[in-house]
Amino acid sequence: MIPFWLPADVPKEREGRFLENFEKSTGGSGRLMLFAGDQKVEHLNDDFFGPDIPEEDNDPEHLFRIASRADIGVFATQLGLVARYGRDYKSVPYLVKLNSKTNLIPYSEKDPWSQQWLEVADVVRFARHSGLDIRGVGYTVYPGSEHEHAMLKEAARLVEEAHAHGLLAVLWIYPKGKYVEDEHDPHLIAGAAGVATCLGADFVKLKVPYVNGRFDPALLREATKAAGRTGVLCEGGSRIDEAEFLAQLHEQIHIGHSRGNGTGRNIHQRPLEEAIRMANAIYAVTVRNASVEKALEILANGSTRNQ
Amino acid sequence: MIPFWLPADVPKEREGRFLENFEKSTGGSGRLMLFAGDQKVEHLNDDFFGPDIPEEDNDPEHLFRIASRADIGVFATQLGLVARYGRDYKSVPYLVKLNSKTNLIPYSEKDPWSQQWLEVADVVRFARHSGLDIRGVGYTVYPGSEHEHAMLKEAARLVEEAHAHGLLAVLWIYPKGKYVEDEHDPHLIAGAAGVATCLGADFVKLKVPYVNGRFDPALLREATKAAGRTGVLCEGGSRIDEAEFLAQLHEQIHIGHSRGNGTGRNIHQRPLEEAIRMANAIYAVTVRNASVEKALEILANGSTRNQ
Amino acid sequence: MIPFWLPADVPKEREGRFLENFEKSTGGSGRLMLFAGDQKVEHLNDDFFGPDIPEEDNDPEHLFRIASRADIGVFATQLGLVARYGRDYKSVPYLVKLNSKTNLIPYSEKDPWSQQWLEVADVVRFARHSGLDIRGVGYTVYPGSEHEHAMLKEAARLVEEAHAHGLLAVLWIYPKGKYVEDEHDPHLIAGAAGVATCLGADFVKLKVPYVNGRFDPALLREATKAAGRTGVLCEGGSRIDEAEFLAQLHEQIHIGHSRGNGTGRNIHQRPLEEAIRMANAIYAVTVRNASVEKALEILANGSTRNQ
Amino acid sequence: MIPFWLPADVPKEREGRFLENFEKSTGGSGRLMLFAGDQKVEHLNDDFFGPDIPEEDNDPEHLFRIASRADIGVFATQLGLVARYGRDYKSVPYLVKLNSKTNLIPYSEKDPWSQQWLEVADVVRFARHSGLDIRGVGYTVYPGSEHEHAMLKEAARLVEEAHAHGLLAVLWIYPKGKYVEDEHDPHLIAGAAGVATCLGADFVKLKVPYVNGRFDPALLREATKAAGRTGVLCEGGSRIDEAEFLAQLHEQIHIGHSRGNGTGRNIHQRPLEEAIRMANAIYAVTVRNASVEKALEILANGSTRNQ
Amino acid sequence: MIPFWLPADVPKEREGRFLENFEKSTGGSGRLMLFAGDQKVEHLNDDFFGPDIPEEDNDPEHLFRIASRADIGVFATQLGLVARYGRDYKSVPYLVKLNSKTNLIPYSEKDPWSQQWLEVADVVRFARHSGLDIRGVGYTVYPGSEHEHAMLKEAARLVEEAHAHGLLAVLWIYPKGKYVEDEHDPHLIAGAAGVATCLGADFVKLKVPYVNGRFDPALLREATKAAGRTGVLCEGGSRIDEAEFLAQLHEQIHIGHSRGNGTGRNIHQRPLEEAIRMANAIYAVTVRNASVEKALEILANGSTRNQ
Repeated sequence: MIPFWLPADVPKEREGRFLENFEKSTGGSGRLMLFAGDQKVEHLNDDFFGPDIPEEDNDPEHLFRIASRADIGVFATQLGLVARYGRDYKSVPYLVKLNSKTNLIPYSEKDPWSQQWLEVADVVRFARHSGLDIRGVGYTVYPGSEHEHAMLKEAARLVEEAHAHGLLAVLWIYPKGKYVEDEHDPHLIAGAAGVATCLGADFVKLKVPYVNGRFDPALLREATKAAGRTGVLCEGGSRIDEAEFLAQLHEQIHIGHSRGNGTGRNIHQRPLEEAIRMANAIYAVTVRNASVEKALEILANGSTRNQ
Repeated sequence: MIPFWLPADVPKEREGRFLENFEKSTGGSGRLMLFAGDQKVEHLNDDFFGPDIPEEDNDPEHLFRIASRADIGVFATQLGLVARYGRDYKSVPYLVKLNSKTNLIPYSEKDPWSQQWLEVADVVRFARHSGLDIRGVGYTVYPGSEHEHAMLKEAARLVEEAHAHGLLAVLWIYPKGKYVEDEHDPHLIAGAAGVATCLGADFVKLKVPYVNGRFDPALLREATKAAGRTGVLCEGGSRIDEAEFLAQLHEQIHIGHSRGNGTGRNIHQRPLEEAIRMANAIYAVTVRNASVEKALEILANGSTRNQ
Repeated sequence: MIPFWLPADVPKEREGRFLENFEKSTGGSGRLMLFAGDQKVEHLNDDFFGPDIPEEDNDPEHLFRIASRADIGVFATQLGLVARYGRDYKSVPYLVKLNSKTNLIPYSEKDPWSQQWLEVADVVRFARHSGLDIRGVGYTVYPGSEHEHAMLKEAARLVEEAHAHGLLAVLWIYPKGKYVEDEHDPHLIAGAAGVATCLGADFVKLKVPYVNGRFDPALLREATKAAGRTGVLCEGGSRIDEAEFLAQLHEQIHIGHSRGNGTGRNIHQRPLEEAIRMANAIYAVTVRNASVEKALEILANGSTRNQ
Repeated sequence: MIPFWLPADVPKEREGRFLENFEKSTGGSGRLMLFAGDQKVEHLNDDFFGPDIPEEDNDPEHLFRIASRADIGVFATQLGLVARYGRDYKSVPYLVKLNSKTNLIPYSEKDPWSQQWLEVADVVRFARHSGLDIRGVGYTVYPGSEHEHAMLKEAARLVEEAHAHGLLAVLWIYPKGKYVEDEHDPHLIAGAAGVATCLGADFVKLKVPYVNGRFDPALLREATKAAGRTGVLCEGGSRIDEAEFLAQLHEQIHIGHSRGNGTGRNIHQRPLEEAIRMANAIYAVTVRNASVEKALEILANGSTRNQ
Repeated sequence: MIPFWLPADVPKEREGRFLENFEKSTGGSGRLMLFAGDQKVEHLNDDFFGPDIPEEDNDPEHLFRIASRADIGVFATQLGLVARYGRDYKSVPYLVKLNSKTNLIPYSEKDPWSQQWLEVADVVRFARHSGLDIRGVGYTVYPGSEHEHAMLKEAARLVEEAHAHGLLAVLWIYPKGKYVEDEHDPHLIAGAAGVATCLGADFVKLKVPYVNGRFDPALLREATKAAGRTGVLCEGGSRIDEAEFLAQLHEQIHIGHSRGNGTGRNIHQRPLEEAIRMANAIYAVTVRNASVEKALEILANGSTRNQ
């Protein structure tokens, strides 16, 4: 039986590869734990060096050490970074993020425009040459930016080309620009989810909805419903308390019907072993239906990878 | 005999396919009932979730359920959405809308620019791979925008390429921008119709003309005449009373000489069975010369599809 | 003998076709009567519907009826319009206008940018598929616009490609933009003529020169001399009295040394039979060296086509 | 022996053609007399019609008559103009100027952007089809313009492509824009010379350096040194007294170490025979090491071409 | 053993060439002494002519004389300049800088946009035709500029294409624009280093970090760590005292963990023999682990090349 998540733009000869990428990346659960590692461009060095960040996080290899030893769905980062460490981290499942911008220009001053760096065909060629396990590609769209048209176009092409090659397509959809008043508005986030669906994305990474500055998992339901067959990933955001993080993650999935998460700082801003345990805890909740208690146990005591 | 609506840019080897697409989509009437489903980008989630909208409308599959069971000419939406549901809705006649923008930037602030997401060749390849029944492509032009030049160019190419492949080409032509004072002005709408004709469109979706804020079907005649052999489709607009909607539709066709309609909210903002009956009623008026009374009867009691 | 108007960028194997297009379109006179029909985009519906315009002019087919029955050099309009009526009007000699813009944005507000819709290669393919008699292509350049660079580039390519295929290339050159004070200045118009020559055009359509708001045919001589081997066509402009129009046309040719005219409104804003007679009168003056009296006689009594 | 001016980006199979173009155009002297005829776009009709300009200069053929009968290195103009007269002027050595803009927008209002009209490959094809003697291509860069990036890119490609085909590449480098205070500053002109060298040009046409509004040939030395193996051509500028012009030219070469000149108005704004004698005088100083006295003699009495 | 710096995007058949380019350019040390010679565009003639600059520096050949006789890793300059002198300087190891802009527009007025002049494929073809020893390509990115998106894209492609051909890729990353307050901020520079790593660069040339306007080599460590396997090259900057320069260079490497330097003015703004000795001294510190004393000795007394 062809499962519901096989999109019709995957050609027959790539169905096997697409389904394998989907199954392996979601551990058969249909849910994706995306380890987000594109911040060295998006946030420059702010996430990797500072008062509360362990020194080892400043070394880009830290991300690869985590990704190679922890339970993750995919490790999402730029192709150049994958290229520099890939030979030594062949076991990591990669998702290549194909656009990125820095945070030097404030959103309040100029509308964001994050252009695609490389073609999907470049990623496919790279995968073939390097033998690395590349499962998909990613791209950020900023609806509401005056450059929205260019990003919508690039995203639509990227999804089609990814599917044509049997790769997963994950979109980050963040409404921005001077006409976006509240980027945590649940209705706006549901709109962003629908955009991803119309672009054909397999998963969409969204902001977490707030009302009066507070998260409530039920607020997610408008978006997860509007996303249809596109799985909603909640943004991990800046580092917060572990127990709170894992509890929210559990609620996002079981109350809000999200289908995963994209987490960076809450994992990598820790010493290696702790980071691995945190990733494993997140994975357990996301993919293995673990309870929050079970996840906290993993965080405390560790767990064997892919056990 | 080659009918008058076969444009000269359809090459000989595609004449059969073009005429078949035209005949099937218009039920042999030359008139098109276009079920418009591109609003998840154009209006974000505003049309699908809210106080007076049934909850099921928030699920994108609602559109496919309607499209697969109701009488329609074509279901117009983005390729990504078609791709996600197409395997389960193979009977639907699709028209792929190739550009879309969100409504986050007010028209009063910046002139609209809705760029083409994918090439016609991508649609053709998709149709071949998926086996779906894709009858045509659509595109919106905003004359009066400072980006008008780019949209005119994309539209002209899109029509030529659609015809080269035997596909229908439908244009949405909506004058916008700070120099457009009244987008319901009948003379302006007639101008928009002429633009579509010069671009070679088979059908053009237009705003409904008003004088003093009131619709009068006779106002349409300048536009339907100016459109020549290009069929004018009236925009369905926001949801209104059913009887009024169907009466206006009847007048648009029989007094104003429109050749169809593009209706979204007036269909999908209803529970499934009612939505199907409403679509059938619209189809009956548009394609089968049904009277308003007959249409209201269908709306009340239903009718077998394609009966 | 190869006549002086065979440009050196027409390759040997296309010389025959180019000369045939030139000879037939100018009736052997070297002068071109261009029936301009691109205004449905350029002026929207303003030229086709209104108090003093016969109702039949609102139907685009009116243009084809005139073009097929009157004496004309070429009928210039957009490819999409040709495509919609071409099968029924195979005898018309067409010139495809490859760019157009609407008049919604005032020149005083934003500099004009009229982008090329289709490639010359598309026109050539269209001619082959349709069997229509396509003699050339046209393009408008607005020197002085901040987008002048893009239009100069497109025009230069268009001329080269037209010649490479044996097609005529006609440019409309209208200086515009906030630094152009008087677009009827004879010296500026002569500059526009020179631009067309440097772009390699066969004919250039120019504004009519005025001094103190009055036309004087001698004013044209600076431009017709500066144009060198490129023939100057005078713009027909808005509709005026027939006798005055024909007298000015005669003076433009015999005193100002223009090599033709581009006339739209003064022809099509009339009932069919009168429009045909007016076109014939213009053709007689332009191509057959008719006197104004003879032309007025044709206008009054008609004449057999191509007699 | 391969002379120093054979650049390394001329491929082996084009070395012969490149050296032949260089030798013939410089008369074996390494110095180039460029007859500049691109002003019909750059200055519209200002240089060709006016109180002190002979009437025959308004006919574009005047330029070809001069170029075909006078001693010149190359005649530089747009391809379209060459195409219209080339069949009758096969003996002229041409250099095709590949970008041009009009003078309608003041430099003080908007930074200049002169885009490339045609590709070098188009010029090569044109040369092959027409059999004309095309020796090279030219392009203007305006450093300091906000569009500088686009012109630098086009210029770099143009030089590489010209050399790949064995053609000479001549750049006009004129710093412009609101941050350029004095375009006759010797240090700025030397900078422009260096830009040309880094772009790989064979010759660069520069403004003449002034200090306190006066030309002094020694001021040129910074630029001619900074240009390295790229030959500096001094701009001819607006028409001045012949004796003064020829004296300055002599000093530019023998004191300032320029390697030629680009002269338009000082030649063509004269009756034909005088224009030919002036071109011959300039050529004699530039290529044949004639003294100013000898040059004035040629201007007065004429000289046989290529004697 | 494949060393850690062989990136995974170098295809198998180019591994040998890439490693050879790396080994030869770093003298087996993994550190790069880059002789920067792109300033004739970047700074026009300011670095080459002036009160304290020897006259011979104004001749572009001065750079080639130094590069051919001194110990250097690579000589980085534009392709056009290499083309004009390459035949006479075949022994020089070149790195082709593929974008450049002038300094005419102040950074405070307009955000910088330095566009790529030529493709990597052009460089590869040039290397093949000319037989020159081209080891790599270079490109400058200005994060924080409103044109950042275009430069990030070009840089990403350039790195991939360079690696695909076995060439080194060196990026200059200089945050600029109105939102960049202090371009010598160590944290910002570390961010720039991370951007280079994500773009896949082999080396990145960075500004030198200051705190309170003073250089301290320890400040470099955040950046050299954040750069991971991408080697950090410190910008040479404007000419300073030799002893101070060499001492700072030593500290940058041994305290700050830089992996080389990019030096222009501190070398070429000297008479030839002294420039060669200065380059040798820099090379000795960078590649051969020479002490500052040893380097000063080389500067004073010279040393045989590659001894």
